[in-house]
Amino acid sequence: MGQGAQEPVFDRWVLHPLTMRTACLVFLGCALLFLTPAAGETATGGEHPPFGPLLFSIAVLVLAAKAGGVLAERLGQPPVLGELLAGVGLGNLALVWASVQMFASARADHTLAFLSEVGVLILLFDVGLETNLKALLRVGPSAVLVALIGVVTPITLGWLASAWLQPDKPVLVHLFVGAALSATSVGITARVLKDLQVTQERESQIILGAAILDDVLGLIVLAVVGGMVTASATGSGGVSVVSVAGIVVRAAVFLGGAAVLGHYLSGSLVRLTMRTGHPDEALLVGGVALCFTFAFLAEQGGLAGIIGAFAAGVFIDPYGRGIRSQREAATLSQLLHPLSSVLVPLFFVLMGMRVDLDSLASPSVLGLAGVLVVCAIASKLVCGLGVLAPRVNRLAVGFGMLPRGEVGLIFAGIGASLRLGDQPILSPSLFSAIVLVVLVTTLIAPAGLRVAFARTRPGPVATR
Amino acid sequence: MGQGAQEPVFDRWVLHPLTMRTACLVFLGCALLFLTPAAGETATGGEHPPFGPLLFSIAVLVLAAKAGGVLAERLGQPPVLGELLAGVGLGNLALVWASVQMFASARADHTLAFLSEVGVLILLFDVGLETNLKALLRVGPSAVLVALIGVVTPITLGWLASAWLQPDKPVLVHLFVGAALSATSVGITARVLKDLQVTQERESQIILGAAILDDVLGLIVLAVVGGMVTASATGSGGVSVVSVAGIVVRAAVFLGGAAVLGHYLSGSLVRLTMRTGHPDEALLVGGVALCFTFAFLAEQGGLAGIIGAFAAGVFIDPYGRGIRSQREAATLSQLLHPLSSVLVPLFFVLMGMRVDLDSLASPSVLGLAGVLVVCAIASKLVCGLGVLAPRVNRLAVGFGMLPRGEVGLIFAGIGASLRLGDQPILSPSLFSAIVLVVLVTTLIAPAGLRVAFARTRPGPVATR
Repeated sequence: MGQGAQEPVFDRWVLHPLTMRTACLVFLGCALLFLTPAAGETATGGEHPPFGPLLFSIAVLVLAAKAGGVLAERLGQPPVLGELLAGVGLGNLALVWASVQMFASARADHTLAFLSEVGVLILLFDVGLETNLKALLRVGPSAVLVALIGVVTPITLGWLASAWLQPDKPVLVHLFVGAALSATSVGITARVLKDLQVTQERESQIILGAAILDDVLGLIVLAVVGGMVTASATGSGGVSVVSVAGIVVRAAVFLGGAAVLGHYLSGSLVRLTMRTGHPDEALLVGGVALCFTFAFLAEQGGLAGIIGAFAAGVFIDPYGRGIRSQREAATLSQLLHPLSSVLVPLFFVLMGMRVDLDSLASPSVLGLAGVLVVCAIASKLVCGLGVLAPRVNRLAVGFGMLPRGEVGLIFAGIGASLRLGDQPILSPSLFSAIVLVVLVTTLIAPAGLRVAFARTRPGPVATR
Repeated sequence: MGQGAQEPVFDRWVLHPLTMRTACLVFLGCALLFLTPAAGETATGGEHPPFGPLLFSIAVLVLAAKAGGVLAERLGQPPVLGELLAGVGLGNLALVWASVQMFASARADHTLAFLSEVGVLILLFDVGLETNLKALLRVGPSAVLVALIGVVTPITLGWLASAWLQPDKPVLVHLFVGAALSATSVGITARVLKDLQVTQERESQIILGAAILDDVLGLIVLAVVGGMVTASATGSGGVSVVSVAGIVVRAAVFLGGAAVLGHYLSGSLVRLTMRTGHPDEALLVGGVALCFTFAFLAEQGGLAGIIGAFAAGVFIDPYGRGIRSQREAATLSQLLHPLSSVLVPLFFVLMGMRVDLDSLASPSVLGLAGVLVVCAIASKLVCGLGVLAPRVNRLAVGFGMLPRGEVGLIFAGIGASLRLGDQPILSPSLFSAIVLVVLVTTLIAPAGLRVAFARTRPGPVATR
């Protein structure tokens, strides 16, 4: 079954205008037949509400995200931009067309939130899989310094800007805004460098190394800030040096432990999947189960689930070699692709839907967003100064660290769900401002990289 | 990134007993560090409860299902048996170890129920994709007659048995028990025939044709019975001939409409995915969105979601040719595989968990289960008599129609969630009895087919 002709036969089916029109009429008839008769009369009532509306929302959201992504690519932009903007569009449809309330419920749905969380976990798991600990050590001091500057400056600038423009908010809000500005998206940068065919240049090696280190540092910052918020919210002694140190130690032990254990155990675990008779299936299911279990363990330890997912990726493939069950078989990363291609856009589109254009219309919020955008750009361009090696294009390194992409969004999403007193840490307008930062930096980075590398490329190595 | 050595390097990592022991100690230390400190102190509190426990349940359930499946295969049984039994084991752990309450909450969790429903939808979508309408017409009268006998006899026998053994239950319960016995699992039969290398024999063609027709008839029976239950439960005029006819017409129009529209439209839809630049991704996402949308439409029309999913499969690939975006590319069915290999076992294991061994321990329930098993076997072996063509191994056809597999489970699951008054149509003990029927028939079929074909194989065609 399912075999047969190699070439799809669709080219032979002539779509005559008349048959098309008939088909459309029949379709409309069917649609009427099905949409009118019975709203409550569904055959799968009973214990839980029917899943139909939720399924339909998922279908619409994912299709909209993909359409946005394809459109963005046509315009030479990273797909994530299009997916986000599709979400912004869907979420703010009510602004132009007041009767569209369908997506309002999607924003708050618990199962949708879970699915998009799974998308993020798989995304970070994949980043963990691609992380090569040895390569990180090799790019050495330059990458470390770039990463450190790239985390410390945005936090400082973001904090100062937030404290200046909203002096009545608690310190933790300023800290969280700064932390959200500190993330760098490895994915977008890696993709742009690949498109420019410069992945083997020195600049690219430094950028990629620093971006991955940046991820690790960002996750630790998130753990610390998140832990401080929870400690302060539950009133369990407020923010003490001891509790912050505890979180740093736990995050470091968790990530370090995963790397060390992975070095010894991942080989035998992967060999185990080969013995099941369905190596690919076992590898995929085992990988997903590992990712979920580590996320659970991280949450149990007071860290964010994504730290666990990243650690799971490092655990199973500490040297980014591309885990596969057999020679010539698909790598785990490739096996994950169908899962992530459905779930990850769901995350981006839901994040976009949370952006409230109405709240951005106020001059004060727009001012805040503008200042944050400037801080976000300036603080990452400064990174280039951390390069110690001679004759390296520092501007390219700075632009490479610019895009915030998914990591900034994940921070913003967690900030919007964490509560301090009865307020979320990131108010809807702050959330929208940070998404704007993500959009702008992600939009500027590819163009900036192109210009910066163009200055270097003509000669063998640029003179500086 | 992620490239590098072709062969995984794990064979070089010597797992010295001492390093293993150290690793295990470190791991235990980490586990203690993470599991003791902070149960409520998670960093992703806020709007919804943390997803960690749910993620961990999914990891455990899916791993248990896969382990059961692999074990079953080692014993020469279909994997679905092992997945079900793993669920029965997990669900009844509390019988032997009273403190295991962890999985009790998993049984009722709304998000888990949604995920397993998605698994079933993808399963039926896949069956729809493989359904070849032309081949169905070709096997002709024999297959039609076999399918009709295979639907009518089990319903009649099941009804009679249920009415005899539980005379105090309403008629609709008897009808639903009969309907649940009528389903045939194409998947299991097809797999066994492939293993025996007899897919090209006449018997196999008839079995596969009849099993697919059986699916379609079963879905229509489900629509009718489900509609009758809902109509009776909501008191909207009870069960009239008109309402039954309405459901039959709606189901037939839905399935027929999908096939006709698919003939004209699926070609241009598939061509659309090719233009996106990521044909595989677009094909997968488009397929899933289509499946969900059709399930939603079916529910809107008062039919079960799985009918919609099946119709979506028929719509996009009416002739079972294996939709693919490009020559040599993966088919949609192959692209769906990673999704289904995580979600489908989740469905089976959750179904198994619902089986209450305690309730099966009562002699009356066990008696009912036994009678139902006998009815289920007898009513399908009779199918062989429907073969009109001469010199066909009728016993093999009968055994081929025997396994109930996933379709019987889907019926049972819907029966357990539909309510009549304040009682579910299928009480927990009836549900357990039907799962027992599924287990026994799925266990007998492969052995029976092997024996039946062995009688035919030695000579070129057996004389009967």
